[in-house]
Amino acid sequence: MNAEIIAVGTELLLGQIANTNGQYLSNQLMQHGVNIYKHTVVGDNLPRIRQAIRIAAKENDIVILTGGLGPTEDDVTRNALAEEYGLNLVYNQQALDKVEAFFESRNRTVSDANRRQALHTEGAHVFQNNAGLACGMVYKHSDAWFFLLPGPPHELKTMVEEEVSPFLDAMNESRDFLLSRVLKFYGIGESALEARVHDLITQQTNPTIAPLAGQDEVTLRLTVKTTDRSDAKKRLDELEEAVYKRCGSFLYGYDEDTLFSRTLDDLRSKGWTLAVAESVSGGLLGASFTDVSGASDVYAGGAITYSNEAKEKQLHVKAATLEQHGAVSEACAKEMAEGVRNEYGTDTGVSLTGVAGPSPQEGHPPGTVFIGISSPDKTHVYKRRLRGDRSSIRRRAVKDACACLLEVGGEK
Amino acid sequence: MNAEIIAVGTELLLGQIANTNGQYLSNQLMQHGVNIYKHTVVGDNLPRIRQAIRIAAKENDIVILTGGLGPTEDDVTRNALAEEYGLNLVYNQQALDKVEAFFESRNRTVSDANRRQALHTEGAHVFQNNAGLACGMVYKHSDAWFFLLPGPPHELKTMVEEEVSPFLDAMNESRDFLLSRVLKFYGIGESALEARVHDLITQQTNPTIAPLAGQDEVTLRLTVKTTDRSDAKKRLDELEEAVYKRCGSFLYGYDEDTLFSRTLDDLRSKGWTLAVAESVSGGLLGASFTDVSGASDVYAGGAITYSNEAKEKQLHVKAATLEQHGAVSEACAKEMAEGVRNEYGTDTGVSLTGVAGPSPQEGHPPGTVFIGISSPDKTHVYKRRLRGDRSSIRRRAVKDACACLLEVGGEK
Repeated sequence: MNAEIIAVGTELLLGQIANTNGQYLSNQLMQHGVNIYKHTVVGDNLPRIRQAIRIAAKENDIVILTGGLGPTEDDVTRNALAEEYGLNLVYNQQALDKVEAFFESRNRTVSDANRRQALHTEGAHVFQNNAGLACGMVYKHSDAWFFLLPGPPHELKTMVEEEVSPFLDAMNESRDFLLSRVLKFYGIGESALEARVHDLITQQTNPTIAPLAGQDEVTLRLTVKTTDRSDAKKRLDELEEAVYKRCGSFLYGYDEDTLFSRTLDDLRSKGWTLAVAESVSGGLLGASFTDVSGASDVYAGGAITYSNEAKEKQLHVKAATLEQHGAVSEACAKEMAEGVRNEYGTDTGVSLTGVAGPSPQEGHPPGTVFIGISSPDKTHVYKRRLRGDRSSIRRRAVKDACACLLEVGGEK
Repeated sequence: MNAEIIAVGTELLLGQIANTNGQYLSNQLMQHGVNIYKHTVVGDNLPRIRQAIRIAAKENDIVILTGGLGPTEDDVTRNALAEEYGLNLVYNQQALDKVEAFFESRNRTVSDANRRQALHTEGAHVFQNNAGLACGMVYKHSDAWFFLLPGPPHELKTMVEEEVSPFLDAMNESRDFLLSRVLKFYGIGESALEARVHDLITQQTNPTIAPLAGQDEVTLRLTVKTTDRSDAKKRLDELEEAVYKRCGSFLYGYDEDTLFSRTLDDLRSKGWTLAVAESVSGGLLGASFTDVSGASDVYAGGAITYSNEAKEKQLHVKAATLEQHGAVSEACAKEMAEGVRNEYGTDTGVSLTGVAGPSPQEGHPPGTVFIGISSPDKTHVYKRRLRGDRSSIRRRAVKDACACLLEVGGEK
């Protein structure tokens, strides 16, 4: 089954927001074995919505419209479908009751504009909205299914999960479904990764294998289409095994994992706690760890020591070290990592000192970063030359610190 | 002039990324007085790209394509345009030299696939790519201008700023141009701000005034269309004055300002330095300050003290305070701010202690945050009840800390 997603909303054309609904719906539909061939965005304009519907219906089994179901005058998606095919709009009692109850509970009068949110084309199947007031619907005309779904992302997601997904499952006559597994890599570029798995990409049939370059990272999405869940898992395992042989040393996690969550998991499994000493990254490493729910059993905190004075006072870096080697040095990174580990009484300490730019510092070009890792066994310092602007260098430095903690890819 | 933006890339249809290029281009084109009526996304598929070009050319003066200019086999945007109108593809020497120099400098052979990035349709004006290898182009066929631009966002932005914007300016025959000024507000919601400037929005003609809700912040974009730059500035000043009368207490900056850059500017103007003591925010405030170029003359660093032990040892918070009031308390915030100010020897100290969630802590619900500000005059603690998930609470806490430092909007 082929589908097109039409997002309705002038705010999208003005560039006020990105079409994240298109991305979300593509992801969801893929999992039901639906192929998406086009995304379209049109404004809140009845003739233009009708035209988009007409073009999409010619080429697709499914046309999904999101947005334009609200109470204001420019919400005309329902009307566009009704006018295009000469259909009547009627109220859904359950949705109407909900609108009226909502306004009554607030002692406000229900306007006709608000009641419009309970309208659907005659003969449609209605999707209730458990996160808002505008109901959704699906209507079959000729050979095409038209889904009308709300625009606000949390309403859309709630309706898709609770109402649309089960409907799509029921529509799926072949009972095929898609199961995906995302493998996450750090320390290898997209083209290098593609080269290593090129034979697998060339041979792919089912499962398929799709590389995607993200920010500083690369992922491979393995997707199997099947009717049998245990068979699906087996096939994904086999493909993952083949991938692992080719580039396993760069694989750090799966699906929702991040470098930060994996690093904390790894330390947790060893029973180790962690403190950070940040100069070049100014708090970004600590903030990234804190973003992981449940971080506090591993991550104790740390010191942001931008100035030499703070490095000496807070981390007990020796004045002689700073004088002889500078703050951007292997020796300073070592003393920072050991200092923060002692000061915070943790099992491991990690330090970051370097040059974010735009100007060089102590004769080092921007991108020069030393990462110190002090563990119960030893202290080791890694040197990096990172590319990019100030913000990229800092972002990559903290990710590299995780890679060092995980020893993903080893020393570079 | 009317335009359609066509983004090319199967990864967009698979839902791997959102079409942020569409959003960016809409914003840019608006500033050149171009109206966007449609966004389309198609996959890396030659017949489908040709079809999208054909439909768009019927209805628009300008068709912008992004993506599909790279070296791999599925990059076929140039070929689609060339085939659709029967045009020859030829090399641009400057772009070709760049591709060859790039590979030579890495001692790698240049493949024909890589050379393809220097191709353009005969008779086109070529845009050089100063952030990558694939050149862009603009070609006029019949009454429509076709712009082909790279897909990677940083390449797209560089090319738009350096090459496409000046070209669009030159195309603009009326010599009218748009001048915008963005006013940035914190501490007031979108609907409350709109209500305050409702009369200005109703009366708007030239300049126009457009509210936009961003992440935790609201902006008003004032845009004037004119041929006379000094007249433009005067009109923007007058409208800003009218806005200021209605909600000036929430205005913190303009255009590229952030709460963090404005806070640092404000402290710099007073000749004050700053240290941060972070518990609930785990380093995010420090990281946000460090993101501002030139931060180091104001921002000295700080301590991330997640545990009570660290608060006592690093910041000299009294054990009795933690015992009697807990870590999430006005008393603790006060001692943290004073402690970090003393420890780092700065003029000001700011502290953040609270509950990010998802679980309550010390009986306080998620979102409870105390912000301590210790300055040469006094120490003051602000209490906040923030909404949202873990990550939103932390993000808002650090922004609120800036607002407190700036005294934007006063106490809430």
